[in-house]
Amino acid sequence: MENIDEIKLEQLKQIQQLLDGEKIEEFREQFLDMHPYDQAQFFMEIDAANRMLLYSYLSPEEVAEMMEHIEIEEIQPFFAEMDPRFASMIFAEMSTDDAVDILNEMDKDKVVSFLTIMDDEDADEIKDLLHYEEKTAGSIMTTEFISVYKTQSVKATMVQLKEEGPDAETIYYLYVVDQDKRLVGVLSLRDLIIAEDDTKIEAIMSENIFSVSVAEDQEEVAKIMKDYDFLAVPVVDFQHHLLGIITVDDILDVIEEEASEDYSKLAGITDGDKPDTNPIVAAKKRLPWLVILLFLGLLTASLIGQFEATLSQVTILSIFIPLIAGMAGNTGTQALAVAVRGLATGEYGNEGKLKLVIREAGTGLITGTVCGVIITAVIFLWKDNFYLGMLVGLSIMLTLIVATLAGSLIPILMHRLKIDPAVASGPFITTINDIISVLIYFGLATTFMNLLL
Amino acid sequence: MENIDEIKLEQLKQIQQLLDGEKIEEFREQFLDMHPYDQAQFFMEIDAANRMLLYSYLSPEEVAEMMEHIEIEEIQPFFAEMDPRFASMIFAEMSTDDAVDILNEMDKDKVVSFLTIMDDEDADEIKDLLHYEEKTAGSIMTTEFISVYKTQSVKATMVQLKEEGPDAETIYYLYVVDQDKRLVGVLSLRDLIIAEDDTKIEAIMSENIFSVSVAEDQEEVAKIMKDYDFLAVPVVDFQHHLLGIITVDDILDVIEEEASEDYSKLAGITDGDKPDTNPIVAAKKRLPWLVILLFLGLLTASLIGQFEATLSQVTILSIFIPLIAGMAGNTGTQALAVAVRGLATGEYGNEGKLKLVIREAGTGLITGTVCGVIITAVIFLWKDNFYLGMLVGLSIMLTLIVATLAGSLIPILMHRLKIDPAVASGPFITTINDIISVLIYFGLATTFMNLLL
Repeated sequence: MENIDEIKLEQLKQIQQLLDGEKIEEFREQFLDMHPYDQAQFFMEIDAANRMLLYSYLSPEEVAEMMEHIEIEEIQPFFAEMDPRFASMIFAEMSTDDAVDILNEMDKDKVVSFLTIMDDEDADEIKDLLHYEEKTAGSIMTTEFISVYKTQSVKATMVQLKEEGPDAETIYYLYVVDQDKRLVGVLSLRDLIIAEDDTKIEAIMSENIFSVSVAEDQEEVAKIMKDYDFLAVPVVDFQHHLLGIITVDDILDVIEEEASEDYSKLAGITDGDKPDTNPIVAAKKRLPWLVILLFLGLLTASLIGQFEATLSQVTILSIFIPLIAGMAGNTGTQALAVAVRGLATGEYGNEGKLKLVIREAGTGLITGTVCGVIITAVIFLWKDNFYLGMLVGLSIMLTLIVATLAGSLIPILMHRLKIDPAVASGPFITTINDIISVLIYFGLATTFMNLLL
Repeated sequence: MENIDEIKLEQLKQIQQLLDGEKIEEFREQFLDMHPYDQAQFFMEIDAANRMLLYSYLSPEEVAEMMEHIEIEEIQPFFAEMDPRFASMIFAEMSTDDAVDILNEMDKDKVVSFLTIMDDEDADEIKDLLHYEEKTAGSIMTTEFISVYKTQSVKATMVQLKEEGPDAETIYYLYVVDQDKRLVGVLSLRDLIIAEDDTKIEAIMSENIFSVSVAEDQEEVAKIMKDYDFLAVPVVDFQHHLLGIITVDDILDVIEEEASEDYSKLAGITDGDKPDTNPIVAAKKRLPWLVILLFLGLLTASLIGQFEATLSQVTILSIFIPLIAGMAGNTGTQALAVAVRGLATGEYGNEGKLKLVIREAGTGLITGTVCGVIITAVIFLWKDNFYLGMLVGLSIMLTLIVATLAGSLIPILMHRLKIDPAVASGPFITTINDIISVLIYFGLATTFMNLLL
């Protein structure tokens, strides 16, 4: 973006001055000239007193357009500080899908009071969407689309377009329905503008239309839109009635959301742990995991404690504990990352999952053998102790095989048992593998003790 | 997608039979009726002999449209098996940006030979794009856009639209240039169709136009398009000449690519490590990291070896090694994940980075204190040894502070020193933190040895 930052900074300063000076007209002119995203950036920077001024200078429609560019997690306090009547007018003016996203995060009683103030038609639209389950096509679709009857003429459609266009999420696709409101075709604006005025819609529409069910997982919808390069996709119920559309801008958010979920899971952080929160909030988000891991770590400690006799006889054994546990953790995380991504993209059914586990067993065997042989040789040369080298090498080999398998098996099992997959996160797998590796290592050491002494 | 999978399977079987039976006409009819993505899925399943048949049944344009829906990493062998003249015709028919993406992955001499066979105009378009650096706006833009002169009339523009529309990546935005081909405005198809025939473009265009520089990072472009909900954004050189456009479908790929890069980095896997590769390939991808970590682990072992005297006196010390190292690894990964995401979104300059490090120090202090106190109490109750509890608790506290700091400082330092950030991956940070934690633990233990005996 060319020098955009400097230009923006200058502009923002000016607007701030207009707001401070209560110059309504000039403020409105300059402010409304900005892209809603920039308006939102400005809005987030100013203090409560200035925000109150701003609410009084702008119409609910103008505030609504800006609000659509504020992150959902940050938007609630603004609605709380406004006059409830003004807030409900803003909800009525927003895209239904965005309004529903915000309301879904609020207390039930607040939502009810907003809907009560709102006029009936708008409230009904929002109520319709509110009951769709989170993360389904229904929850991200919008009801502001253009639908035309297949028996309509091109000319009538153009008139309708000019009327309904301003409120629709997209005018680049028109959805064609029969008299029962069942989806029967699609027409691109491209096709419409090159058609003759008196042509019937059904003559130029494409019947080859993709639709998604209202209960479809949002990630699946995102995948379809990405693979097929759709700008929008219609949403239907089981009788093929057209309920709404999902546009590509909603999908961008879904793709980011899902990717960041996988990422956070791997790191053992929660999604709200952003670089700009304060340390107390960050610590609160991370502590639950850390405390669980602390107790799992104590379990590992007590397991090693069982081998205290072995340890006191051959002290040198303990110096390789971090090496073996570390390798187990790392290899497990690698396997986990591959499995989680595979499960997320839903690429495979049961057969595919079995194939993945077999694949990982093979991978573990290869990496385990290579690392085992290397470490045996190195320790033999370093400590001049062949049996110690063999012991550590063999432990590394077995550990890598088991840890790689665990990294893929555990998330698949949890997925199958419908346990919240967040449990199969990186730190958890790492700690499980710590325990396994220590058991293998000390188990072998105790068994072959006579060779080591 | 409603029963789409069963319908598809049936369809694919039929088409396979038509291809086997060499029924050209029926095959073409059915095949071309499918969405190019589905064509690509079918194409990926059939064997080489059938692919040869398919090449001979379809025009280069038809194959090109299908090829745009095959992943770049998988596409090369197909071009290698075709007649080079046919291949170069396909490149000429593809979107320039997609053709360039594929050619960028090929050997230089192959690229030259394709460009030589191709007709000059197409070859020039591709050559223009080939020299843009990877991951910049220039490398993902397409040159197939519609540009109009500001002095043109609406009527002339509609005529131009019908002519150029079929080849353009999008007709929903028209870019307005002056006689020097400098970008001066934008016009949506929406605005054009509601305008009077003899209006001049400059009267209805919006001058408030965003553009990105050709050298802009692709991730930055993706962020802008996502924040501002753009379907397309124009790309300009430093003199503001219009060079190309980037459409939202290219941005979907960028968002996925960048997210999966961060994810892989955290897990210590390389991007090609997908669930469907074979174990030998997977092992090859993972081994480099594992072997490096093996040697870092040996370093840890030799560091602990320095404390062998301490260990042999107080054997019980060794049972807490995995606990302390594990906590260091986990907390470091959490901090790393937050820092990497912050660096990736480019949210902050130097000031922001300093703030992040201070924030992480605070977070480490809180989590460290909480975990330290818990573990001191637990060990005191369990082992009835207050000094041992204090030692482990204090080690955990210091370790968590240092590991959290390391998790944010190391990637920032590497970013500053322009070292390949892939080095600051999860396993690397984990191993560094293993070493630090062990040093803290045994350092404290050796210092306060007399209290423990």
